[in-house]
Amino acid sequence: MIRINDNFTRLPISYLFSEVAQRIDRFKEANPSADIIRMGIGDVTLPICGAAVNAMHKAVGEQADANTFHGYGPEQGYDFLRRKIADVDYRRRGIDVAVDEIFISDGAKSDTGNIGDILGTDSRIAVTDPVYPVYVDTNVMAGRAGTLEADGHWSEIEYLECTAENDFIPSLPAKSPDVIYLCYPNNPTGTALTYSQLAKWVEYARANNVLILFDSAYEAYIRQPDIPHSIYEIPGAKDVAIEFRSFSKTAGFTGLRCGYTVVPRSLEGLSADGTKIKLNALWRRRQCTKFNGASYVVQRGAEALYSEEGQLQVKEMIDYYMRNATLLRDGLHDIGLETFGGINAPYIWLKTPGSMSSWDFFDKLLEECLVAGTPGSGFGPAGEGYFRLTAFGHFDQTKEAVKRIKRLKLN
Amino acid sequence: MIRINDNFTRLPISYLFSEVAQRIDRFKEANPSADIIRMGIGDVTLPICGAAVNAMHKAVGEQADANTFHGYGPEQGYDFLRRKIADVDYRRRGIDVAVDEIFISDGAKSDTGNIGDILGTDSRIAVTDPVYPVYVDTNVMAGRAGTLEADGHWSEIEYLECTAENDFIPSLPAKSPDVIYLCYPNNPTGTALTYSQLAKWVEYARANNVLILFDSAYEAYIRQPDIPHSIYEIPGAKDVAIEFRSFSKTAGFTGLRCGYTVVPRSLEGLSADGTKIKLNALWRRRQCTKFNGASYVVQRGAEALYSEEGQLQVKEMIDYYMRNATLLRDGLHDIGLETFGGINAPYIWLKTPGSMSSWDFFDKLLEECLVAGTPGSGFGPAGEGYFRLTAFGHFDQTKEAVKRIKRLKLN
Repeated sequence: MIRINDNFTRLPISYLFSEVAQRIDRFKEANPSADIIRMGIGDVTLPICGAAVNAMHKAVGEQADANTFHGYGPEQGYDFLRRKIADVDYRRRGIDVAVDEIFISDGAKSDTGNIGDILGTDSRIAVTDPVYPVYVDTNVMAGRAGTLEADGHWSEIEYLECTAENDFIPSLPAKSPDVIYLCYPNNPTGTALTYSQLAKWVEYARANNVLILFDSAYEAYIRQPDIPHSIYEIPGAKDVAIEFRSFSKTAGFTGLRCGYTVVPRSLEGLSADGTKIKLNALWRRRQCTKFNGASYVVQRGAEALYSEEGQLQVKEMIDYYMRNATLLRDGLHDIGLETFGGINAPYIWLKTPGSMSSWDFFDKLLEECLVAGTPGSGFGPAGEGYFRLTAFGHFDQTKEAVKRIKRLKLN
Repeated sequence: MIRINDNFTRLPISYLFSEVAQRIDRFKEANPSADIIRMGIGDVTLPICGAAVNAMHKAVGEQADANTFHGYGPEQGYDFLRRKIADVDYRRRGIDVAVDEIFISDGAKSDTGNIGDILGTDSRIAVTDPVYPVYVDTNVMAGRAGTLEADGHWSEIEYLECTAENDFIPSLPAKSPDVIYLCYPNNPTGTALTYSQLAKWVEYARANNVLILFDSAYEAYIRQPDIPHSIYEIPGAKDVAIEFRSFSKTAGFTGLRCGYTVVPRSLEGLSADGTKIKLNALWRRRQCTKFNGASYVVQRGAEALYSEEGQLQVKEMIDYYMRNATLLRDGLHDIGLETFGGINAPYIWLKTPGSMSSWDFFDKLLEECLVAGTPGSGFGPAGEGYFRLTAFGHFDQTKEAVKRIKRLKLN
């Protein structure tokens, strides 16, 4: 008998981003000439930088010649890229991460989704709220979420609210989760944790034997000095945290697909009989069995980002997007909207005016300004009354969007 | 408390291919000047064909320009590639596969591993024996395999033996599995099923409501007319089968990473309450949540394989490898070794001489001929006494390997 994974039937049918797309489509149907500016999905718009493009042309050329052809690569990624990551992303920040603690992949979405494969199926999960939906949905699929309640919470997941009331700094868990997802700089709120704020989490995790799944896909956007780029800047974090990184937002690789995950050798979990097992070995085994490495061409492109030229070009790209962020923040502020984020992250999180719902504000912004964003409630119950705009657009479009938003009829 | 997935602790520590690599390394250490010909791992050696290389250069160029830049693509792959697949791989063979039944991925290893996500965790599994280890290991990880017994079988998996005694044609299951993995043309035995032999499996699956996971990664190597390229050539197969394909062996994409999976819309599984659920929708949901599409550059490369030029170049590549296969078969036959496969597949499966074990033959071939292959026992208990050689080498190397093997002392 063909039997399905019943956990899938618990997932609500519509997703946030498909509902967003449908509302835009309906609006476009009714208003065919409307020139909508899309600031919803967190996709980049600038082209790939020259250093990476040149490296990828070279790599494609190598694949055309039997003498330089590369077939199957290591499932964990090529050492040429892992060594650069260990050196530039970690050693230069005073962090010791070994090459064999780094696993190259096709992106952080895959890794944050697949990491659950190596964890106990009855592990209790905590997430910040609002949250990147992948963390929740993948745990629903794995049977760790329980049932969806009327208020939008999953019964077995602990939600750590992040709202203006607590300055978007999540409280430590009240229940006792086994696994906590933290994403900083944060998607969707655009806020960051300082060194001492993050240190509290590491301390908590160490004291309570909790695994932190730390998503730092947006670390390249950090501008302020007291914001850690890596959780491993906190002493002892290597005993409790896995870190996910991505070239998607750092260098515009959303369509190329490359990211990496650090699983420290000192990180251990318990088996049923109480034996300590290294998660590094489990993840290696998972990747060797269910993954065959990221594309050689793309790994060469990623390597080039670590050259002197590549580093400058990446910085320019980030500066470009952060200029958009400042423009957005200032513009929204000018018309009296309360905004958060956008200082160490490419997302602006705004409080909807009055007590307007996130979806009502979505419709209002679309209809009055022809600007599409993302309703905060789509990221979790505590996102209700908030709204996300991204700084990933072209500068002129962002300027135009700000101009339009300023015409918004508030009250 | 950090808890691991205990199923991982059941996996034996050493893998087939790492043991192969270690034995070669030890031999090289003792014999530093030995010029070993590696015919073990099933990796290709010819470079990527011109049509795909040109298309990838063009795609890299597009990524360098804001006007042609591609960010996030559809998780299911671009329609430009899905349409070509539907047309060339299916419609031209008289098979109706719709674009939305095709899911592009980073390769068949990922897909055959991840497909378990959408299936019931207590589904009973059957595999042919010998078998591609990924089918078994991923089910061990998911808790469907039971325990490893002393004879090399997993207690909860049904093994369908394929040996010279039954002409490598597996019998229908004696137990009642829910899911059966079939790989034809077969890795590792290199044998194929005829239309009528495969039709029996479809009939069985339909009569017993069993899911067939059909891996046809080697279909491009089929030479004989009565061997089906797709399981969907059999009427009714779309109600019971998922098909996996890969550009790895078809076009040398092992290092580029691209494949696809067909999940027919008519294929249904049962939920706990007996509701029929479409597997197509489940796989779409799984891919949207845990995957972010294959690399744009690589998808453009794959698309080019379907051009007239690309089709000719792919055919030349296959012809090249199949010339190796014939050379190997003939050479082994000349010295009295019994061989199988190599007619519709790039693998030669040979019976070890006398009652020699697979590993003893591995050592003998390495020591006497400096040729490394893969011991059949590594693919499952019924592989004991067999040995795999691949036709994926360069022609001159393959010729040299045959010359050396002919010196083998078979007493």
